[in-house]
Amino acid sequence: MEMKERPVGIFDSGIGGLTVLKEIRKVLPEESTVYLGDTARVPYGTKSGETIKRYSLENAGFLLKHGIKLLVVACNTASAYALEELKHNLAVPVIGVILPGARQAVMKSRLKRVGVIGTEGTIKSGAYFDAIKGIDPRVVVFPAACPLFVPLVEEGWTDCDVTRLVVKIYLKDMKKERIDVLLLGCTHYPLLKNAIGEFMGEETNIIDSASATAVEVKRVLSEKGLLNKGHGTTARFFVTDSPERFTNVGAIFLDNGELTKAELVKVDG
Amino acid sequence: MEMKERPVGIFDSGIGGLTVLKEIRKVLPEESTVYLGDTARVPYGTKSGETIKRYSLENAGFLLKHGIKLLVVACNTASAYALEELKHNLAVPVIGVILPGARQAVMKSRLKRVGVIGTEGTIKSGAYFDAIKGIDPRVVVFPAACPLFVPLVEEGWTDCDVTRLVVKIYLKDMKKERIDVLLLGCTHYPLLKNAIGEFMGEETNIIDSASATAVEVKRVLSEKGLLNKGHGTTARFFVTDSPERFTNVGAIFLDNGELTKAELVKVDG
Repeated sequence: MEMKERPVGIFDSGIGGLTVLKEIRKVLPEESTVYLGDTARVPYGTKSGETIKRYSLENAGFLLKHGIKLLVVACNTASAYALEELKHNLAVPVIGVILPGARQAVMKSRLKRVGVIGTEGTIKSGAYFDAIKGIDPRVVVFPAACPLFVPLVEEGWTDCDVTRLVVKIYLKDMKKERIDVLLLGCTHYPLLKNAIGEFMGEETNIIDSASATAVEVKRVLSEKGLLNKGHGTTARFFVTDSPERFTNVGAIFLDNGELTKAELVKVDG
Repeated sequence: MEMKERPVGIFDSGIGGLTVLKEIRKVLPEESTVYLGDTARVPYGTKSGETIKRYSLENAGFLLKHGIKLLVVACNTASAYALEELKHNLAVPVIGVILPGARQAVMKSRLKRVGVIGTEGTIKSGAYFDAIKGIDPRVVVFPAACPLFVPLVEEGWTDCDVTRLVVKIYLKDMKKERIDVLLLGCTHYPLLKNAIGEFMGEETNIIDSASATAVEVKRVLSEKGLLNKGHGTTARFFVTDSPERFTNVGAIFLDNGELTKAELVKVDG
């Protein structure tokens, strides 16, 4: 197979990375994709840095066997803890979700006041904080962990009273800080964009890493002359556990019926 | 060390089993305990039966190395999927949380109408349903999965508006069924006993597997002549990842400051 025709590889700790896949397929409809959800070991957010690095290398190893031309780490925790390790060990370009999201947030903030929300692990890692400060040290960053957002999304409660109440509890302090950009630093959160946007109001620009990452993938493929002119592109899905749950909950993420089958695989050892 | 003096071993997929440990130490203050939280691989509830069996055997193997005289599987998912496998492979008595809870629920229900709540995995396994029917086939069982209860407890939101609203959504249909016993089939749920009891009303008896299991442990130890008359009993805690998070969130579960240190270990391979 010619290099160009090879698929883009995407891994996540579970199902959340499907928001990134969805944006990639929207921006790059002529690319084939291979998605790996490490559902046997989800969530990464409560695990240690060392464990996350080991899991990420195993996931990447699996995708490389499928001949990918570029790797997207569609998991904020893995992007925070394992990106350098992956770049150091892999021969293909590696793109995480943090830097693209951070860049877009900085670009869009006129007031230089940016909120960032994510899981406990992502926020505690300081990865978005550091990335934003690295791009523009003048930006004031307001981070907040929102641990209940992921289970709410996976329950399918993206638009209900409970969700609106939880959004209010997590974001009421941030709203007082007069931020003009709120960066969704978790792949599940794009599904709560409406509920979050409603609470924060029109003056706050909601940025998600998923779409920013898709744009970055296109830029890198183009720069390296690796863009495909695909006919009959494919989208394969692999999981390390419970393919049935993955396809069921996945339906919340991908609305076009693209995800009908996920193949069970083993990636550790 | 004499057999009697050996510790009781307890494992859970993570932190929830601490409610079981707490009851065991209340009922059996003269016993030493060794607790293993498999925090690297939590949650079990979304994983397949095969995976859960493998993890459970690895956890038991670790505890056996610490010379335990009895094993408590303080995890509903592992009790549902791996108890027979464990009993078959281990030389020490093995007690799960399902049968003790089911027995007590049947005993307390005059109307023979019992509700059971738990995680998606536990409810889908049908383990409580089967256990109750096995004890008394005349009992009508009303099962319901409550996936958001665990993250609510781990967030420490055991008594707030969000929790009351979620309780109402999950249990409103069950309330209409005129059950007189509601069995909490998840180790996290005892922490929501007040919120659940408030919604269900006084006519519903709330039973939790944790305290029922502790009573069963006492019965088995006594029957086998293994009860300890301990001086200076110890309680050790091991986790497979993130000891810091375990001790922090653990404080929600154990209120006596008993959990100050958790030791990091590897149990797989």
